[in-house]
Amino acid sequence: MVSAPSGAGKTTLCKELVASVPGLHPSVSYTTRKPRPGEVHGRDYYFVDEPAFQEMVQRNDFAESARVYGHFYGTPRQALTDMMEKGLDVLLEIDTQGAIQIKKKFTDGVYVYILPPSIEALRTRLIQRGDAPEEIQRRMQKARQEILNYREYDYIVRNEDLKQALQELVAIVHAERTRMKRVDINWLERNFIADTTTT
Amino acid sequence: MVSAPSGAGKTTLCKELVASVPGLHPSVSYTTRKPRPGEVHGRDYYFVDEPAFQEMVQRNDFAESARVYGHFYGTPRQALTDMMEKGLDVLLEIDTQGAIQIKKKFTDGVYVYILPPSIEALRTRLIQRGDAPEEIQRRMQKARQEILNYREYDYIVRNEDLKQALQELVAIVHAERTRMKRVDINWLERNFIADTTTT
Repeated sequence: MVSAPSGAGKTTLCKELVASVPGLHPSVSYTTRKPRPGEVHGRDYYFVDEPAFQEMVQRNDFAESARVYGHFYGTPRQALTDMMEKGLDVLLEIDTQGAIQIKKKFTDGVYVYILPPSIEALRTRLIQRGDAPEEIQRRMQKARQEILNYREYDYIVRNEDLKQALQELVAIVHAERTRMKRVDINWLERNFIADTTTT
Repeated sequence: MVSAPSGAGKTTLCKELVASVPGLHPSVSYTTRKPRPGEVHGRDYYFVDEPAFQEMVQRNDFAESARVYGHFYGTPRQALTDMMEKGLDVLLEIDTQGAIQIKKKFTDGVYVYILPPSIEALRTRLIQRGDAPEEIQRRMQKARQEILNYREYDYIVRNEDLKQALQELVAIVHAERTRMKRVDINWLERNFIADTTTT
């Protein structure tokens, strides 16, 4: 699970992360917001209208869903559990509300929070992106509130330099794959502890 | 802290790890065993006799110490705490007894266990190293007992391929440096949460 305040570079980093780490699969969210230029339905998001989204909420189709800046976002439960049952590593780009929901259900998850270089750098990025002044003000306030949730996360990656931040994300995936709790106990006991020379 | 059964390639991996990760400093242990060809006093170990070692034990000079295959090994406490107080990352190559001792005192440590490719590969390596048959038998039995302690460790790295195992160790250090619990809370709150625009 990767979260970040708006403008911290999360989407770029997650794309590069998936391209850099074999066997890491992005979860494609549903959203009611309009596609941005270049975004593809089914690749970046499933773009749906609000009634369709609410129907999915009613059917409990989402592992998590949240309203962010007036738009709804949701992670499809079935696609997620299918990937997990296949033993795949799944990358979720979600906001802090969603991360907190997911954490209650998937205790084995890894939670990463991406920080902008500084709060002022965040403002600069939002200005460069062409956000309106009142939108910037709103996002800055939201960012401060959001960053307060950093304690919910396992790792904090500061995106001061894209290459460095990407390396840190890649390291987190590789390291987490070697965690003791993910080792197949049966495999280990069969191969390393059972004395096969005397049987 | 890095542990491994004898012959799993721990010493080579730790040397390469220190060479690969800036800011990671090896702790130099004291030992009563004789230097092997190429080993340098003060770099690989401090080679001391048993009375000198026991005097250090009496003076509580060791953060951990253990007897392994008839020889004593100990981590000098002062050097370790000096490095930690400077905020340095310290690499300790220690056996499982030592790791369990250290864990009680340094709760913030990261514990990595290196596995050989298989238990049979371990036997092959010991044969190639020229160990005597009874020595091999003893080390194999010890290895099985030791690997049983894997649950004490945070990460399990299988040294099937030296380059791959090294990459995993490097990833563990980089990932651990971004852990939320290591983030300076004051720095984060000062730079990201406090609203500096209204003061």
